Amino acid sequence: MSLTTAIPAADCRAAPCLPPRIEARRGTVDCTLALRHAGPRAVRLRHECVGAPGRPVVLVAGGISADRHVVASDAFPARGWWQDQAGAGCALDPARHRLLAIDWLGADGTLDAPIDPADQADVIAAVLDALGIEVLAGFVGCSYGAMVGLQFAARHPARLSRLVAVSGAHRAHPHASAWRALQRRAVALGALQCDEHAGLVLARQIAILGYRTPQEFDARFAASRVVDGRVRTGAEDYLDHCAGAWAARTPPTGFLRLSESIDLQAVAPEAIEVPVTVVAVAEDRLVPIEDAQALVERLSHARAPRRPQLRVLRSVYGHDAFLKEPAALDAVLREALA
Amino acid sequence: MSLTTAIPAADCRAAPCLPPRIEARRGTVDCTLALRHAGPRAVRLRHECVGAPGRPVVLVAGGISADRHVVASDAFPARGWWQDQAGAGCALDPARHRLLAIDWLGADGTLDAPIDPADQADVIAAVLDALGIEVLAGFVGCSYGAMVGLQFAARHPARLSRLVAVSGAHRAHPHASAWRALQRRAVALGALQCDEHAGLVLARQIAILGYRTPQEFDARFAASRVVDGRVRTGAEDYLDHCAGAWAARTPPTGFLRLSESIDLQAVAPEAIEVPVTVVAVAEDRLVPIEDAQALVERLSHARAPRRPQLRVLRSVYGHDAFLKEPAALDAVLREALA
Repeated sequence: MSLTTAIPAADCRAAPCLPPRIEARRGTVDCTLALRHAGPRAVRLRHECVGAPGRPVVLVAGGISADRHVVASDAFPARGWWQDQAGAGCALDPARHRLLAIDWLGADGTLDAPIDPADQADVIAAVLDALGIEVLAGFVGCSYGAMVGLQFAARHPARLSRLVAVSGAHRAHPHASAWRALQRRAVALGALQCDEHAGLVLARQIAILGYRTPQEFDARFAASRVVDGRVRTGAEDYLDHCAGAWAARTPPTGFLRLSESIDLQAVAPEAIEVPVTVVAVAEDRLVPIEDAQALVERLSHARAPRRPQLRVLRSVYGHDAFLKEPAALDAVLREALA
Repeated sequence: MSLTTAIPAADCRAAPCLPPRIEARRGTVDCTLALRHAGPRAVRLRHECVGAPGRPVVLVAGGISADRHVVASDAFPARGWWQDQAGAGCALDPARHRLLAIDWLGADGTLDAPIDPADQADVIAAVLDALGIEVLAGFVGCSYGAMVGLQFAARHPARLSRLVAVSGAHRAHPHASAWRALQRRAVALGALQCDEHAGLVLARQIAILGYRTPQEFDARFAASRVVDGRVRTGAEDYLDHCAGAWAARTPPTGFLRLSESIDLQAVAPEAIEVPVTVVAVAEDRLVPIEDAQALVERLSHARAPRRPQLRVLRSVYGHDAFLKEPAALDAVLREALA
């Protein structure tokens, strides 16, 4: 992987991920939110904060499958979804920041209504209220998290010092939206025959083909062969394994509503007056680099506090680069959060 | 659409597609074929030939959904699958050529066994035997038809003067194979509840996202909106329309076995000693241009009768360009068949 900027790669990978006895707390917030499409709803919000008290707070948000558990801690030792990106010596270091994260509204499947990324931004504001946090030192959002970050910057500008939006933009691309619509149809097809698991598995497999790239598949998987009178392609074992594990832990309604939510993304970059670094991956098949470029152009308006930055990474992991390229992303985050 | 070569676009679009009273004949051939994976099978082969008797024969082959009816004629006036590509003044002109085409082996759904593109090449040889045709003046194959054309060139070199392989290569790309595997799984998911139509529709919708490009979808479809409490994306009406019509005329077994057949493509370009023009589309998401380039490099071996040609087209229609860019493709065919 190469980087357009000449930042040396971080050495955080050589260090243990977390120093001992890092503090972490979880909590819930019960409140009523005015959802954009679903009206007022009583909701329970879940958050986790890792890091030394009194340090600046950075909100960390990932894709629709991510949750509030970003990295392991003494209190919550399970591996987090961004375990490789945060640790001693990294740009995101719990010794220097408090890393705050939420479970996405709707992820548990109990809210069967359209959820807008703007709603998630309001969820974060409600959590900040409950925790007595006035201003976020930073918001690092990836994929859906980047969409929510842009909404947060537009809706709650006084509460955010800087945003890093990785592999997410101000809109959903129409082709990627169609791709997600077909994933939701796979779930519906499974549900018709009372086999939601099979539908979820197929949906996730379709999704994976968009997250990853032809280059990776070419390097990784063998040619097809005939097995018991059927053709089996090289990637199917991998797709079965990944999608099966994901489907086993994902409520169908939670997936459907968060998948839809990506397609509702619509924020005017001209309404954002917070400093933004946009990080795009050239090989991303869901968020084309043209959309990241358009976002940066539109963020460069007269009221922008400083010129928005665009950092372009190259990775065979495409949209999933934020989960697979910790060293390159660390270099970008180090600069953006400095 | 632009072309790397400076050939003027053909003016065939201005002329009527076919002169009156063009001759056309259909026929069937019953024979036994030794299939590569399924062993000896008694099969019925179907063909159609359009054009003036005594003229040079050009075999025309399209994707797995194409059939023997290439263009309308007096005898068979229905619109053909390549109606816009063949006609008076075109590179493919029934007044100057006889255009021969077949129904793919297995397309009717009666052969539920693995079918190799090499089998289809042998089908064509058997049809030539039955019709008393010694040598094809040309073979113009697109998508799956290009794969079969490469097999025909390798297996029956004495029967072919030149090959034009459009948007198809010597192998199936592993990412595209995975994409097709998921289409077959959609059919299987539908079949589980005895709703093969619903499964076929979803399969076709997944396929269309690969045939076309993000650029076309971006220009063509609006943003998503909430309809009756659900998110509906801009492309869904289009996908429903196209896939519904296709599924209504496609036998599930025929689709499954021909889809598998694409993934069995494996031919060594070094074994081909027939002149070949490879036509690739830069935006093709199923047959990456790197595969077309590798094909041409490997066709440039010591025994090649002349240097293979690569023509690169650019089209927002991606893999479907051979169905959507008749003028640009006519220019390429004119040169290749001259």
